[in-house]
Amino acid sequence: MTRHVTCIGAGVIGGGWAAHFLSRGFDVVAWDPAPDAGARLRRTVDAAWPALTELGLDEGADRSRLRVAASLGEACADAVFVQESAPEDLDLKRGLLAEIVVATTDDAVIASSTSGFPMGEMATEAPDPSRLVVGHPFNPPYLIPLVEVVGGPSTDPAVTRRAAGFYRATGKTVIEMDREVPGFVANRLQEALWREALHMVANGDATVEQIDAAITEGPGLRWPVHGPCLTFHLAGGEGGMAHMLDHFGPSLRSPWTRLEAPELTGSLRDAMVAGTASGHDYAALVAERDRAVIAIRRAVEQARRP
Amino acid sequence: MTRHVTCIGAGVIGGGWAAHFLSRGFDVVAWDPAPDAGARLRRTVDAAWPALTELGLDEGADRSRLRVAASLGEACADAVFVQESAPEDLDLKRGLLAEIVVATTDDAVIASSTSGFPMGEMATEAPDPSRLVVGHPFNPPYLIPLVEVVGGPSTDPAVTRRAAGFYRATGKTVIEMDREVPGFVANRLQEALWREALHMVANGDATVEQIDAAITEGPGLRWPVHGPCLTFHLAGGEGGMAHMLDHFGPSLRSPWTRLEAPELTGSLRDAMVAGTASGHDYAALVAERDRAVIAIRRAVEQARRP
Repeated sequence: MTRHVTCIGAGVIGGGWAAHFLSRGFDVVAWDPAPDAGARLRRTVDAAWPALTELGLDEGADRSRLRVAASLGEACADAVFVQESAPEDLDLKRGLLAEIVVATTDDAVIASSTSGFPMGEMATEAPDPSRLVVGHPFNPPYLIPLVEVVGGPSTDPAVTRRAAGFYRATGKTVIEMDREVPGFVANRLQEALWREALHMVANGDATVEQIDAAITEGPGLRWPVHGPCLTFHLAGGEGGMAHMLDHFGPSLRSPWTRLEAPELTGSLRDAMVAGTASGHDYAALVAERDRAVIAIRRAVEQARRP
Repeated sequence: MTRHVTCIGAGVIGGGWAAHFLSRGFDVVAWDPAPDAGARLRRTVDAAWPALTELGLDEGADRSRLRVAASLGEACADAVFVQESAPEDLDLKRGLLAEIVVATTDDAVIASSTSGFPMGEMATEAPDPSRLVVGHPFNPPYLIPLVEVVGGPSTDPAVTRRAAGFYRATGKTVIEMDREVPGFVANRLQEALWREALHMVANGDATVEQIDAAITEGPGLRWPVHGPCLTFHLAGGEGGMAHMLDHFGPSLRSPWTRLEAPELTGSLRDAMVAGTASGHDYAALVAERDRAVIAIRRAVEQARRP
């Protein structure tokens, strides 16, 4: 029997993962308790396929290599890698991950798409939690490269490495975390922005449409090329992050968001400067950002007028 | 004598504004107390010019139409519009805005680039605060379209409208706010993300490089096309924002960021759903996002390899 990738859950994320693995030439077996799961999955895969074709399919990639299994046990039996994308419900995930551990062979890696539960909290019912790891994607998993990989206290470090290697081999960009932080890295960042947005709508400070425009017409245009740290490094001019922190340090005590900032200690300042300044030429970074922002603006303009 | 645009401050933002107004065919007069202000300004304008040329210069646009004045009074005397981009220091801005009011004619609009001070706090020393308005740009002002426009309690609403109209006429995208909120809209959102990032570095949760990669390889790729609200509308699948909130509502109480979320009341839920769901076809939005993310990924890849 051929080994395959198993996708548990047929929602937006589970379906997106199925499309990703199919595009990379794998057999994919899916399972979801919903009666219409098969139809939903195929709709998601069909909607993703033009984008995946445009990006370039791997050899053997074929939508017909998706099979919907009748049971979780059948879906998992021959899996080399299981991606669990069930609803974000801790009790549900605890039970499901335990079932998957039992249903898989000892060499199968089991990754959870959870948006923020640490594996230490999800693995409590599994008879053997060593093969359980978080592999958190971003919607849609077939287009956004990032996967955050982190194990729990009982995860075998070799399993975490295998998961990261497997994702990379399928073209993903992996951030491996060495400790469990609720929400991981990227989700904590976007969740802070999202909660501030909810506060603003709840408080009548801004409308939903203004919030979206504020990002798409503003800082959102810089973030695909330079992350928030390198962006602020450039905001400091030729003095870079050091000048930016010295200049805007006092603003960290202003009520510019509902989130209070940490104290800007000397060691935090040094860490920010070291992480951005080293090895970058200011003028070259400015030119790179400018080329990217122009190209991004044009890309979006064209995508909005099909 | 010809009327011109005046840029007060020769830093990254002041210089970026000068480049923007020059590219739109204006005479620009600048002033900054620093002895090397003229050289810095010309360096910023020169660095911006290839990007502005690529985007398309307006008739008459010419870098030589930048003049550096010897005094604030000389710079402001014939200004039709003044853009103040001094350092983010409340006392400094109070004094400077008062001087600018005195130095300009009664029909000149005076806008401050402040990142977050409400005009009500900055206008306290001005003899006539009715012509003072916030016009908050994003770096670089010559490429990022967004300007947040908001007046203080003493600002003439006609001045706020004129400022918004002037920016729009020069190709900017304007968000007009009807109340002063510290940090305005876009800056509050990115500041929440930034403060969470600082906490993570201070706490050893993630490195500066991981934080940047988390955004550039993750949610940052979606934000130029769909803001945070429309992005999460799509994360809800065919059920949209309503399904997303019903599903992830409990996560708002999880410690996924240091910022506590507001209570997800029925009216907040309804406002989020109304702001995203109306008039959008789910499949068309998915296709638009997919086209955009592919084009954005390619744009960034190309910009990084000049």
